[in-house]
Amino acid sequence: MIEVAAANSNVMRLRRLLRRRDARESEGCIVVEATQGIAEALRAQRVESIFVRGGNRPTDESIEALLGPVDPGIPIYVLDQKTFDGVATTVTPQAAMAVVSWRAAAIDDIAFDRGPAIVLDGVADPGNVGTIVRIADAAGACAVFAGPGTVDVTASKVVRSAAGSLLRVPVVTSLSAAAAVVALRVRSVRCVGTVAHGATAYDEFDWSMPVALVMGNEAHGIDDAIAEMLDAEVRIDMAPGAESLNVATACAVLAFEIRRRTKGSGA
Amino acid sequence: MIEVAAANSNVMRLRRLLRRRDARESEGCIVVEATQGIAEALRAQRVESIFVRGGNRPTDESIEALLGPVDPGIPIYVLDQKTFDGVATTVTPQAAMAVVSWRAAAIDDIAFDRGPAIVLDGVADPGNVGTIVRIADAAGACAVFAGPGTVDVTASKVVRSAAGSLLRVPVVTSLSAAAAVVALRVRSVRCVGTVAHGATAYDEFDWSMPVALVMGNEAHGIDDAIAEMLDAEVRIDMAPGAESLNVATACAVLAFEIRRRTKGSGA
Repeated sequence: MIEVAAANSNVMRLRRLLRRRDARESEGCIVVEATQGIAEALRAQRVESIFVRGGNRPTDESIEALLGPVDPGIPIYVLDQKTFDGVATTVTPQAAMAVVSWRAAAIDDIAFDRGPAIVLDGVADPGNVGTIVRIADAAGACAVFAGPGTVDVTASKVVRSAAGSLLRVPVVTSLSAAAAVVALRVRSVRCVGTVAHGATAYDEFDWSMPVALVMGNEAHGIDDAIAEMLDAEVRIDMAPGAESLNVATACAVLAFEIRRRTKGSGA
Repeated sequence: MIEVAAANSNVMRLRRLLRRRDARESEGCIVVEATQGIAEALRAQRVESIFVRGGNRPTDESIEALLGPVDPGIPIYVLDQKTFDGVATTVTPQAAMAVVSWRAAAIDDIAFDRGPAIVLDGVADPGNVGTIVRIADAAGACAVFAGPGTVDVTASKVVRSAAGSLLRVPVVTSLSAAAAVVALRVRSVRCVGTVAHGATAYDEFDWSMPVALVMGNEAHGIDDAIAEMLDAEVRIDMAPGAESLNVATACAVLAFEIRRRTKGSGA
């Protein structure tokens, strides 16, 4: 259903959802600004409405060429280019945006024996948080914990970096990293941090499930109070002279090591 | 040597170096905009000049607190905040910028038995290129090939993502990915690409040196003509449902697998 002139109230809502976390939370959605991500959300039947950047008058055919098949029940609003670009959060907007249903997960719904959990402690860069959600998806993590202290996982830059992975990976947002570690330990999930020196080399560690990787802030690492609550720490040996690993890179190395080591057991 | 009012010609040069690749190339330098990166460059004795954001009048002591010890032969120019922020390429500039000597490497200077080479084929996102240089540093890669077709490795966004790693990892910029693969094969370096399906699992591959990882464009992967020249391809198995890996994430998984597998042999 294509509506050529989108009602102003729809544009206002889209703008609010893109810019205000409380609006996304209360309405249970995120906004996807990449056509590839919208196509994935359509396949997952999570798209609520679509906004198309006008220009050549869009048709059902041109929209399907862009996004794949669209269920006729999903409203499609066409915005003139100026309005579209003014609402979008990217410097070079793509041809469409979509409102996609999304809810944070509850800890009690997570199967901790299926893959590692990833707990973010004050990760500040949206690109890193999105990349970690994408890593969690690819490596088969059971959940990401991204609570207060870490960048909002529904923010536009995170959604962009996560590509479609936010639709597949359960994300718990209600617990701070400290509260998450406490709750995980209560559930017999071992919480493992990463340190630069000392500890066990990550490739010699026993990664049997259930386990959680605790990833710290880009500049300061894991908070001291949280470090004291961990069950273990591992280190990733770097080549001589190297100063540090990006938090998403460290997460990738650890999550895929766990995947490699546990895949024989059906994880 | 602190000069409170930087001569206009110095500011013009800084602006040109930040924005023009040909200027960086002809002068053999990059501009580092992060204080942490400047501190690393100072320790490596690669800093040519420093520009400090005025405010409180900087002193030798305040500059040392920010950047560590500064050789007295290095000129320090103080810019007023408006000038500084106008020249900087970041939205929220840090307290200093530095001109740092940097030259691309020559292929004949690289020791291919020391670690994998990483060849970038059309990698378009500066953050990905910088992250890959940082991964190369941490995983002990012998070089990165980032030639025509891939984002300029001296661009400000790449420098930022690479942190100090550009000062440690040799980067060859003169060869396209295709020319690099030809030159590497002539030198008996096996060139290995990554594919989504088929091929050998990355953790079952024989990674003995010398070897090069060929990483493709974010959207289109490795160019077909280059894929035909490869010695082998490997795949990184993902969890069911996941759509793709970020190119830097894939590079991290492969480079650290090689490090893990070859570290016993002294690499």
